[in-house]
Amino acid sequence: MREVAILGVGQTKFGELWDRSFREIGIEAGLQALVDAKLSSADLGGLYLGNMASGTLLEQEHIAPLILDYAGLAGRHLPAMRVEGGGASGSLALHQGYLAVASGQYDFVVVGGAEKMTDVAETTANQITSSTADHEWEVVFGATLPALWALIARRHMHEFGTTREQLARFAVHDHEMASKNPLAHYRNKLTLEQVVGAGEVAEPLGVLDCAPLSDGAAAVVLGPLETAKQHTDTPIRIAASEVACDTMAVQHREKITSLQSTVVAAERAFRRARRAPVDVRVAEVHDAYTISALLALEDLGFVEKGRGGPEFASGRFGMDGALTINPSGGLKAQGRPFGAVGVAQVAEVVRQLRGEAKDRQVAGATFGLTHDVAGTGATSVVHLLERTN
Amino acid sequence: MREVAILGVGQTKFGELWDRSFREIGIEAGLQALVDAKLSSADLGGLYLGNMASGTLLEQEHIAPLILDYAGLAGRHLPAMRVEGGGASGSLALHQGYLAVASGQYDFVVVGGAEKMTDVAETTANQITSSTADHEWEVVFGATLPALWALIARRHMHEFGTTREQLARFAVHDHEMASKNPLAHYRNKLTLEQVVGAGEVAEPLGVLDCAPLSDGAAAVVLGPLETAKQHTDTPIRIAASEVACDTMAVQHREKITSLQSTVVAAERAFRRARRAPVDVRVAEVHDAYTISALLALEDLGFVEKGRGGPEFASGRFGMDGALTINPSGGLKAQGRPFGAVGVAQVAEVVRQLRGEAKDRQVAGATFGLTHDVAGTGATSVVHLLERTN
Repeated sequence: MREVAILGVGQTKFGELWDRSFREIGIEAGLQALVDAKLSSADLGGLYLGNMASGTLLEQEHIAPLILDYAGLAGRHLPAMRVEGGGASGSLALHQGYLAVASGQYDFVVVGGAEKMTDVAETTANQITSSTADHEWEVVFGATLPALWALIARRHMHEFGTTREQLARFAVHDHEMASKNPLAHYRNKLTLEQVVGAGEVAEPLGVLDCAPLSDGAAAVVLGPLETAKQHTDTPIRIAASEVACDTMAVQHREKITSLQSTVVAAERAFRRARRAPVDVRVAEVHDAYTISALLALEDLGFVEKGRGGPEFASGRFGMDGALTINPSGGLKAQGRPFGAVGVAQVAEVVRQLRGEAKDRQVAGATFGLTHDVAGTGATSVVHLLERTN
Repeated sequence: MREVAILGVGQTKFGELWDRSFREIGIEAGLQALVDAKLSSADLGGLYLGNMASGTLLEQEHIAPLILDYAGLAGRHLPAMRVEGGGASGSLALHQGYLAVASGQYDFVVVGGAEKMTDVAETTANQITSSTADHEWEVVFGATLPALWALIARRHMHEFGTTREQLARFAVHDHEMASKNPLAHYRNKLTLEQVVGAGEVAEPLGVLDCAPLSDGAAAVVLGPLETAKQHTDTPIRIAASEVACDTMAVQHREKITSLQSTVVAAERAFRRARRAPVDVRVAEVHDAYTISALLALEDLGFVEKGRGGPEFASGRFGMDGALTINPSGGLKAQGRPFGAVGVAQVAEVVRQLRGEAKDRQVAGATFGLTHDVAGTGATSVVHLLERTN
């Protein structure tokens, strides 16, 4: 396989972007990434777009050529296509862009992720996000994504003694991190008492345990590693890009206190890259709910199964820890524009590995990980990224 | 790039499959293709699924792992992802599967296409199909897909003298072909008078100029060409897989009597394969509307621009012509389950190249083409397929 590098990144502000259209934010992120990669559109080979639900959110399918079109690139007749896998759509688009460059058919591709979640009523948006769970076996019976994650949380508490406060710490951490991220949806800090005392969504998860619905877009430019130095002083090599799936419905799994899709995707990724969890200095992990982040620490191999709560509480995943989690603020505080999330995670780790993360720079980071999950874990995607100079 | 072959194909009946679920038909096609490729699920590396609009049609996003799950493969944690580009979703999924195998990261992948169009009201289904046109510039003003194609037809008549009867001949041809295809949605023959005299949908297109809304699924198994002989006596090499895009809205194009996305995708494909249109013995082309098929003949380079009507009327694209078009019956008569179409086109050309097409076998076919279009041509995908023994 041809080695692939990330040459440029771009990202819009995340939040309630009511005055900006889907097309606008998609283009803004993509053009930023192109400029960052010192490429003109004439060099581009194609566009991969991660998006979860434009059909229901915007009454618009077939959106990848739409973005090219509004970027003024229709006349070049580039290939463009959308990749979808619920909340992991962005990472899956990156996986495809990676394979496209690795295959040799394409040299330079833009991988974008974009979603406008806040242009429809909140109840509608929540229904749509729940369409990433199993409609026939979960959703028709009234289950929503937070309700399903709450089942997982409750079971984790039962099996391992995880506490309500241990969960809440993930939200406090993410808001602390996002306070230094100018692109974040929420930059306010939270106290443990605020998170624990917030209104309940699906017990034990309260409203401050849940990531918001956000609008936003992110993009990266990929190209062959061999010539990457022509585009950037700090090429970031994709050391592994791995996807794994599991049953759609939580009830069909042998155990629910672990996401097997994450375990397997991480194992495959570390094996391919010939590295281990201990090598990771910075990671953006899936924290759509506080319990999701806790499971991520365990399932990615950063802590022993069941120990996520107390280990995180010890503070070892903060800015000064051996491994810093979610310096962007994660889905919880940077925001959750579904299809954009996986690409934004990669953009953040690239900024960190390049040393361009400013106030939230993780010192000495040369190897990073991103972890994206759809639904309740029917899809997980893990990327390993490495600074090569 | 590693050479890629098609090792197996599968396809359900197309039609109004009200007694069968999306999951069922997806699995049926996939398992058929696996058995045809003499592979067990243990050999599989992943699943690519083409689907246009499961979110609006089924209230279910994140459907690729759903199919794996219901095929009993969740425990293997294979990668699975959906690729979307309107009516060209199936071909785009094939393009991705092709790149995945060509890259070397995956050895064997199933590429499926599936859509259930008839479980919602027909007006809803028509709205959904129109969501592959430009929502903000076309659809909100009342334009539908057939109305937009009718504009193209009217302009073609104006510029080149194409007649209503010349258009109608494509429908007569497709139904004649489908009469020999047991999987076809419609197997009844049509007369020219019936097509011309049918109720109008968007003048000059009548109801019999338009492909139906269908349910159905198709699948192919891809693997490295090098070892293909272990799986089949007749491996079919993918000689080219090319995608090109254009403006979403018809009104934004310099001319509307040609799909530039098709012209460019075909040029790229013939260049990559070092072949020419004259080499093609059998082709499945996009005929969602009779005018679409006429444009396809011209834009793929089979006839001179403007000459599609009279050349087709001469009969040279029938079963005994030098090039046989749509032996399956095409979208018009085999049926149009949007996301499945591109994969079904490839399955038909594979059957033809293998000499397994029975009553509708095109004699001596060793080189074939498929052509898939989304919306009014914002996306076109061309595959060139070659029998290698």
